[in-house]
Amino acid sequence: MSTSISSLTPYFIVKNARVAIDFYGRAFGAEELFRMTDPRDGRIGHAELKIGESTVMIADEYPDFGALSPDTIGGSPVTFHLATLAVDADLARAVDAGAVALRAAADQGYGERVAMVVDPFGHRWMLSQKIEDVALEEMQRRWNEQTGA
Amino acid sequence: MSTSISSLTPYFIVKNARVAIDFYGRAFGAEELFRMTDPRDGRIGHAELKIGESTVMIADEYPDFGALSPDTIGGSPVTFHLATLAVDADLARAVDAGAVALRAAADQGYGERVAMVVDPFGHRWMLSQKIEDVALEEMQRRWNEQTGA
Repeated sequence: MSTSISSLTPYFIVKNARVAIDFYGRAFGAEELFRMTDPRDGRIGHAELKIGESTVMIADEYPDFGALSPDTIGGSPVTFHLATLAVDADLARAVDAGAVALRAAADQGYGERVAMVVDPFGHRWMLSQKIEDVALEEMQRRWNEQTGA
Repeated sequence: MSTSISSLTPYFIVKNARVAIDFYGRAFGAEELFRMTDPRDGRIGHAELKIGESTVMIADEYPDFGALSPDTIGGSPVTFHLATLAVDADLARAVDAGAVALRAAADQGYGERVAMVVDPFGHRWMLSQKIEDVALEEMQRRWNEQTGA
């Protein structure tokens, strides 16, 4: 039985979406496509951003609907993986904008140079630049070797 | 200054990724593209799934790297928005597979019929079917009207 699902878009919650959207523009080049503003209190009820060729959805906290930010929950079980052609430059830009580096850029055995940051709103971002074509079997072989398995 | 970022892919953590991948296949038609298995203990260190035309990354918990599931953190500040052509059927399928409906399918003023579920691993999914073309100004006008603003 097949589904009618055509696409998946991550929808993420922050405290102070207005400030966050500005931050994501400076940190990752996010472009705002549109926003809907709550007439009662000015919260952003829904906005869409373009990052590279991908779309993401963002909103302020709505606790009544279970929409809570990492600050309120205490972290996030989702990381946003960003494919980049220049991980060092893009890491520097994100940190300049106010992100905190959790892992410096480093080459990985699976053929990517990867860095990790957390943004001021508690979301985690992985910047990843492909540096080598590695076949799946070779990736697993290197991992086994690393661990002595 | 522009970035070199080309795309964003959500990377999400679960407890027992092997069981979760099977669940996502039954619930949302997710197709496994590949997986890397930890030679030390059989955890899935990285796997990629296709849902509709979108790719997502999934792994087991790696607490040493801050990779924690919703069970451990106590929720998620990210919802996965699924565009579907048949929200009622796809909601029924997800619930059959073991998801719990948080909101029944209902028509929304912004032109979509929307339902929300939480899966057995603590991640939230929004199923959304477009039912009407609504211009942005009209969306905002309806919201203002609803709230008496």
